[in-house]
Amino acid sequence: MNFLSDNAVPASPEIMRALEVANVGGASGYGDDQWTEAVEARMRELFSEDVSTFLMATGTAANAIALASVVPSYAAVFCHRESHVETDECGAAEFYTGGAKLALVEGDHAKMTPDTLEAAYGGFNRGVHSAQPRALSLTQSTELGTVYSLDELAAICDWAKSHDLITHMDGARFANACVSLGTSAKAMTKDVGIDILTFGATKNGALAAEAVVFLRSELAESFPYHRKQAGHLISKMRYVAAQFLAYLTDDLWLQNARHANSCAQRIAEALPERLMHRVEANEVFLRLSDQEKATLRSDGAQFYDWGDADSDEARFVASWATTDNEVDQLSACLRKLGG
Amino acid sequence: MNFLSDNAVPASPEIMRALEVANVGGASGYGDDQWTEAVEARMRELFSEDVSTFLMATGTAANAIALASVVPSYAAVFCHRESHVETDECGAAEFYTGGAKLALVEGDHAKMTPDTLEAAYGGFNRGVHSAQPRALSLTQSTELGTVYSLDELAAICDWAKSHDLITHMDGARFANACVSLGTSAKAMTKDVGIDILTFGATKNGALAAEAVVFLRSELAESFPYHRKQAGHLISKMRYVAAQFLAYLTDDLWLQNARHANSCAQRIAEALPERLMHRVEANEVFLRLSDQEKATLRSDGAQFYDWGDADSDEARFVASWATTDNEVDQLSACLRKLGG
Amino acid sequence: MNFLSDNAVPASPEIMRALEVANVGGASGYGDDQWTEAVEARMRELFSEDVSTFLMATGTAANAIALASVVPSYAAVFCHRESHVETDECGAAEFYTGGAKLALVEGDHAKMTPDTLEAAYGGFNRGVHSAQPRALSLTQSTELGTVYSLDELAAICDWAKSHDLITHMDGARFANACVSLGTSAKAMTKDVGIDILTFGATKNGALAAEAVVFLRSELAESFPYHRKQAGHLISKMRYVAAQFLAYLTDDLWLQNARHANSCAQRIAEALPERLMHRVEANEVFLRLSDQEKATLRSDGAQFYDWGDADSDEARFVASWATTDNEVDQLSACLRKLGG
Amino acid sequence: MNFLSDNAVPASPEIMRALEVANVGGASGYGDDQWTEAVEARMRELFSEDVSTFLMATGTAANAIALASVVPSYAAVFCHRESHVETDECGAAEFYTGGAKLALVEGDHAKMTPDTLEAAYGGFNRGVHSAQPRALSLTQSTELGTVYSLDELAAICDWAKSHDLITHMDGARFANACVSLGTSAKAMTKDVGIDILTFGATKNGALAAEAVVFLRSELAESFPYHRKQAGHLISKMRYVAAQFLAYLTDDLWLQNARHANSCAQRIAEALPERLMHRVEANEVFLRLSDQEKATLRSDGAQFYDWGDADSDEARFVASWATTDNEVDQLSACLRKLGG
Repeated sequence: MNFLSDNAVPASPEIMRALEVANVGGASGYGDDQWTEAVEARMRELFSEDVSTFLMATGTAANAIALASVVPSYAAVFCHRESHVETDECGAAEFYTGGAKLALVEGDHAKMTPDTLEAAYGGFNRGVHSAQPRALSLTQSTELGTVYSLDELAAICDWAKSHDLITHMDGARFANACVSLGTSAKAMTKDVGIDILTFGATKNGALAAEAVVFLRSELAESFPYHRKQAGHLISKMRYVAAQFLAYLTDDLWLQNARHANSCAQRIAEALPERLMHRVEANEVFLRLSDQEKATLRSDGAQFYDWGDADSDEARFVASWATTDNEVDQLSACLRKLGG
Repeated sequence: MNFLSDNAVPASPEIMRALEVANVGGASGYGDDQWTEAVEARMRELFSEDVSTFLMATGTAANAIALASVVPSYAAVFCHRESHVETDECGAAEFYTGGAKLALVEGDHAKMTPDTLEAAYGGFNRGVHSAQPRALSLTQSTELGTVYSLDELAAICDWAKSHDLITHMDGARFANACVSLGTSAKAMTKDVGIDILTFGATKNGALAAEAVVFLRSELAESFPYHRKQAGHLISKMRYVAAQFLAYLTDDLWLQNARHANSCAQRIAEALPERLMHRVEANEVFLRLSDQEKATLRSDGAQFYDWGDADSDEARFVASWATTDNEVDQLSACLRKLGG
Repeated sequence: MNFLSDNAVPASPEIMRALEVANVGGASGYGDDQWTEAVEARMRELFSEDVSTFLMATGTAANAIALASVVPSYAAVFCHRESHVETDECGAAEFYTGGAKLALVEGDHAKMTPDTLEAAYGGFNRGVHSAQPRALSLTQSTELGTVYSLDELAAICDWAKSHDLITHMDGARFANACVSLGTSAKAMTKDVGIDILTFGATKNGALAAEAVVFLRSELAESFPYHRKQAGHLISKMRYVAAQFLAYLTDDLWLQNARHANSCAQRIAEALPERLMHRVEANEVFLRLSDQEKATLRSDGAQFYDWGDADSDEARFVASWATTDNEVDQLSACLRKLGG
Repeated sequence: MNFLSDNAVPASPEIMRALEVANVGGASGYGDDQWTEAVEARMRELFSEDVSTFLMATGTAANAIALASVVPSYAAVFCHRESHVETDECGAAEFYTGGAKLALVEGDHAKMTPDTLEAAYGGFNRGVHSAQPRALSLTQSTELGTVYSLDELAAICDWAKSHDLITHMDGARFANACVSLGTSAKAMTKDVGIDILTFGATKNGALAAEAVVFLRSELAESFPYHRKQAGHLISKMRYVAAQFLAYLTDDLWLQNARHANSCAQRIAEALPERLMHRVEANEVFLRLSDQEKATLRSDGAQFYDWGDADSDEARFVASWATTDNEVDQLSACLRKLGG
């Protein structure tokens, strides 16, 4: 019962097969190949004609370089206190921007609001002496398994635009959010005012494939050079592109996410009184005592503690590869605790 | 009645005179001169034989380059949420370190404690995924005019050492704190566990002179190169050194601070019920309505609003140059408000 | 006839198969998996017990982060004027180091010597005003298809050590050099004085897999954090590790290189009077007129022009995937030119 | 006989006096003062209405931050191999830009030409793989005491514009060049196509005062934030501004430079057969044997060796403070050598 992370599971067979198919004949390096071109075309279909797409191997790099390509070293970038860019990227955004400040925003369940953003913004009123507000990064679905509604997204983007901020969405679990809201990729990004999207595939079935999608292509001008200077331009790009192309073919990305989300729902139903956050994507956060965690682990469940060292939080992540049997087993174990 | 800032007043006549005296004959550039040598010797007297001293023209650079010379780009540096390095240096520490994160610490009256530090530290438990705790920067006297006691400093430094952190003191108003505690420079730094001191003179009578004092000289190895690469190695260094030498001669630094602190005390006594923080150095923070602020200004008092845009806070800064007459006038105005 | 680049060909079937085999069951992320562990063990066998190995997806990142982890922002890093770090990495080394200077060294056929190094070193005698010599990076085999002999390597490393420089080898085509010299990985690195190796697999049969091997493990301390902060820590690391493990299994790396080198030899023999450099690895550089290039291309040969825009140079790269038939065809075409 | 450097002499009495005069009453910090405003107005008179001026304390910072404010981290900046930004700033330009590459250009007597620029430019034809040409920095007067003619400047700037490069002039000895050419500040910059000027005063009579003058003010947008983030925004700016204002008053800058240049001319005439470069500003470079250098030094002449460790070059710098007596003495000594 592996609920550690959606990066601790195998890659989808469709994606493995695509690698095999791509591994024939010559192909120019650095993205000048038919697979990359096909991914770019597919992105234009998904979002609009005016998008620029760049493939990467990691989400941390995708987030940080996307931000670095549009803000200066003296920028403030607003993000939630619990966001991955703040807590799990070892200062990648600060590094790539050359020193920009992540301005931390409050908000229940890892979600910012115009009000909490406004409160954070208030600290940057010291003219040239403050870092300069320039961008905002939100995560969809969030690090706590919740999902911003379209209205919530629109409100945040409206607030951002009224403060001249560029908007970035960390979509490491983008597919899970699309499925959760039952909406399209475009409706959840461009239509509500997102400027740049990190579109993740790695956590949802790929080996290592992320796309930075500039939804306003005029923002993309410097990105190719930043990507190259960072050593993130993969030479045999066809293998990243083939992954992403398979991911976007026959709605694999949505199918995988749908499965993962539904597994998480079933887990949530096993012990609803312990849920810390609504389960809207593929992650379930439960309050469990040390004793209960130990019991679960001795029953064979793998999962991570969450929060501070001595907290009573536990995170269970479902993925495309989670089996019904695993969910059944875990649910049974959880029900025993709840009894 | 100029209570705007201690950088909005003239330089001490003793320091101006020292510039004149230094302006004779040749002197090698870049610190290879007798004045710089004399300042270094004076610092060894004040602190210990094992110090390395470097002169600079601004406190922001002194703080940021001091930190950058001892922590890597992936560091977390703990500092108070209200600290100058966080709020007023436009991301200088992040820039010079190449992306280190300022980990913000809570605490009343701009003072951190081992408890609030420990709470902040708890967020950096994610192995390689987190920024890595490496240093701590505290301000003495603080940005809110308070002063850490020797015991408080020792407790913080003990906590820092137990977590393998290098300790930095932003002493932009170092003299004011020494006078406030009635203690020596060494007692307030080296003896309690401070590793690196930014020893400010600019706010207390100099034109532009700050010293970075490494109280463990082995930490100073890379500083000269960082200073040079940053363009902060002044070519005609004798003029910075002459300022600092005069500052440390005949206790000018302590006399100036004593005067400023006592002015602040007198202001505080004029409206004690409105004090937001204890007045322990040369700054007074008062709660005043917009109407009251306007009245004071129409009476000729110059001061800054503080805090968020719509707050009711006001800051009054006394300096070596504040006259008794200015204090008397301001006190009278304040007493009228308090009536 | 694809002689464009060794990154324009498919991946070795053995490596593809290894990916399939690895794609079963759970595996912790970020390198905490059995494949990564096995690669590390294999590197210890190849080099010595005292090595630290880190897997990456690109050679540019491997080179630049390796250097950045051991030199400060004010460093000078010596490298050949024709080296990949200088000409083809868009300033990656400068970026990751935070501003170090690549000090360009002369030398025929892309090879530095102690004399040309000494000449370059002479420009850095200005004390704190110069960038500070700290490291040296050489490429083996070189960008022009030549190979340093063991004696040449030892002489360069001796020179470097006498100047307190850390030595780095860019081994994007490491296997080709090992085969060319008929020597072991250890003999060509640790034994001659190399401190850090970028051990490439991508150009010799992998999809995307490079290893940074610290041959003195005490130099590796900060590397994991730099790699993470750069977004170069692959989450599903098993897929990179599985590639590298297959690469090092049953001497695949040497077999692939041996084939590529021997193809290059045969090409060289077709038109020896036009060779610009000795063909010691898998690259052939020929002087060809525009007319001759056009003829070759119309005959179906793919290759890159080299050098400045109007030069008469052409590069042909053989790889593990080059077929005898391709070599025969190209050789025939070349012989026609030489007639 | 101090001919070490123009930064090893005192400050002009007019400038010292200006400091005294400025040291009265309150003045807002950070450049919001009457002296700074007056300098800005004076620059508009000298150059044109469309200039933005920023005061700094060092030339290294002025050069590096000026460049960093207009080029990205992946830029190539062309400059002469002998230029101060390359040889004497410890990598400041690379640091501030976050990793831009200084592309070194050849040229006799420290002067670039369109031809040598074109040759250097040729190395940057590798698309995204190369650093991207974005700017050019030339020094006027040069590091070897020569001066570009207006035609030479225009030719370089024309070449730069045709390659979409921003042009920067390092004017550490700007006044010496103006006097040498007998031309105006505007004619030597804006009129020939210079975009950004570092206008130095420190080497020509100030204590520490440099101005970055954007001759196309639209390029200045980000500079104030970079300056602040770098810790180069002086808090008590009036003291820098007062220096610069005195420097520009009653043509002090030109008078000082005229004196220095004419001293250099007289020195040159003492031993013309040993001149390495034409003496067009305030520096004289002579070929002297070790024996001859020793003789001069025993006669009381102070000067620096130049070039590599074992070269036979010597540099003599005249300044505003050089006395006729010093020149007479040195000339006599030199004539003895030439006999």
